Amino acid sequence: MNSDAESAAALPDFAAVRAAQARIASHAHLTPVLRSRALDAMVGAELWFKCENLQRSGAFKFRGACNAVWSVDDACAKRGFVTHSSGNHGAALALAARTRGVSAHVIVPENAVRTKLAAIQGYGAELHYCAPTMAAREAMAEQVRAETGAEMVHPFTDPRVICGQGTAALELLEHAGALDALITPVGGGGLSAGTALAGHGLDPRLALYAAEPSGADDASRSLATGRRVTEQVPDTICDGLRGIIGPLNFTLLQQHQVQVLTVPDAETLAAMRLIFERMKLVVEPSSAIVLAALLRQRELFRGRRVGVILSGGNVELDALHFA
Amino acid sequence: MNSDAESAAALPDFAAVRAAQARIASHAHLTPVLRSRALDAMVGAELWFKCENLQRSGAFKFRGACNAVWSVDDACAKRGFVTHSSGNHGAALALAARTRGVSAHVIVPENAVRTKLAAIQGYGAELHYCAPTMAAREAMAEQVRAETGAEMVHPFTDPRVICGQGTAALELLEHAGALDALITPVGGGGLSAGTALAGHGLDPRLALYAAEPSGADDASRSLATGRRVTEQVPDTICDGLRGIIGPLNFTLLQQHQVQVLTVPDAETLAAMRLIFERMKLVVEPSSAIVLAALLRQRELFRGRRVGVILSGGNVELDALHFA
Repeated sequence: MNSDAESAAALPDFAAVRAAQARIASHAHLTPVLRSRALDAMVGAELWFKCENLQRSGAFKFRGACNAVWSVDDACAKRGFVTHSSGNHGAALALAARTRGVSAHVIVPENAVRTKLAAIQGYGAELHYCAPTMAAREAMAEQVRAETGAEMVHPFTDPRVICGQGTAALELLEHAGALDALITPVGGGGLSAGTALAGHGLDPRLALYAAEPSGADDASRSLATGRRVTEQVPDTICDGLRGIIGPLNFTLLQQHQVQVLTVPDAETLAAMRLIFERMKLVVEPSSAIVLAALLRQRELFRGRRVGVILSGGNVELDALHFA
Repeated sequence: MNSDAESAAALPDFAAVRAAQARIASHAHLTPVLRSRALDAMVGAELWFKCENLQRSGAFKFRGACNAVWSVDDACAKRGFVTHSSGNHGAALALAARTRGVSAHVIVPENAVRTKLAAIQGYGAELHYCAPTMAAREAMAEQVRAETGAEMVHPFTDPRVICGQGTAALELLEHAGALDALITPVGGGGLSAGTALAGHGLDPRLALYAAEPSGADDASRSLATGRRVTEQVPDTICDGLRGIIGPLNFTLLQQHQVQVLTVPDAETLAAMRLIFERMKLVVEPSSAIVLAALLRQRELFRGRRVGVILSGGNVELDALHFA
């Protein structure tokens, strides 16, 4: 058996998303759902934006990390948590561990962006530097786990993480009422898989979409061939979407017939500007990609009620130039 | 009698703010109230941010314009509305007139920023260009009024506008429950006066503050001397706060003992960055000034529950550089 099939044996279900919702309720923000007439008119659809850029730690990642942290017993929690991520999951796990008053270890590549590391440290995590390869990250995470007994929380393949991410869609549907479609970004597939579980748990007729950078289109290619791509050299500004879709995540996207829409970075940047201008929301490129996909594939969404997860707002302001 | 005393005779009251709330309810957004643990910690207070940057047209100005537009009878409304403003009030009146299906005339200086004019035109208003002086603006507004019979809606001295602006504070207090203080920016004084009426209408013990640029400190100087300053050469990046406080507005600020806090532009820019980074909200400098005032005068707010009106988000993205 390959590892994909093994993982698929542990597929999470809708009940686990419901359980996550109760588990994180007192820690995570119930983020607002916003509308924009201007963007509705541009897409030709009724868009309901779930603002996870306003979530604690600035991204939906807090939901999954929080669900994982509060899923284990006290003895386990006391040994702390460990993950490898230089981005939003690292910050989210650090903050989630803090909500339980326990330690977090975050493995980061030596070349990571300084401000992102500051955010992770700001939430109280201990940083461990490693070479900038996935193998080095995983090896060091395993080493820290062996030495400390910390619980590993993978950024997107962990079922607890997937279920936590699904709670954003639950809240969105509970707020907006019946929708025709949901769209999220897809990178490793934690949010898209969790959204599929949550969405179809509430309404099996929902059409599910995920937006992926053209320069990191592993999910799209994996679904097209039915075989998970396991290597790619990403070329995209969407730093949250450079990972390869996880095995569990891939299986869930297949089962729920999630359609992946690829988007060139230039359109994502234009969409990011639109969200700043029209919605007055700070979103990162990995988040703006969903609006770019809606604009690019207008015909799929025309006249429909579409739930849109704005996944995060942790953009590097120093590098931000719209002119 | 001078004109200040005449205007004071027509002072609006709390009942008029309540009436405005009902009048605009089906047109304006009930904007979200957001919190930020990071900013709470920095100020040492409990901050409740009313997000008028998420209001229609991108600023609280829509409330006042909408209240004015829906205050008149059909015969009057059909003749349209007129104002002079190259900024948020112009866009707000244009959009408000559109909600009633009638015309809006907006007098703008020849040197106004192109993108702001595009926004006003985008909402369907007719632009009238004039020389960049207040006298030229007022003369042309009067000319358009005489020719068309359009109803004049002044950006901040109009009691209907003042009462409309006060509805943001009503909503904030209804959402947050009892607060100790409210803070708004102050330019012409529509928002600060309306907030005073609304705030003290609900809770006479509320402490009221207004933040003003050091380079346009007419309200501060007027309150200090008890005599309204009528001339100043503003020097501030806060383009929404360059106007001189109106007579009615000044009287209301006096009556309600609003304390004005002046802020240097550099601190306003730093606060704007903080709101982008920590709250993931796009705000314009005229809006960020309130956080700068809170940080500058921490001792006034320590441990208190403070309502903060984030007034608008119409920032020029092309000119935005944080580095």
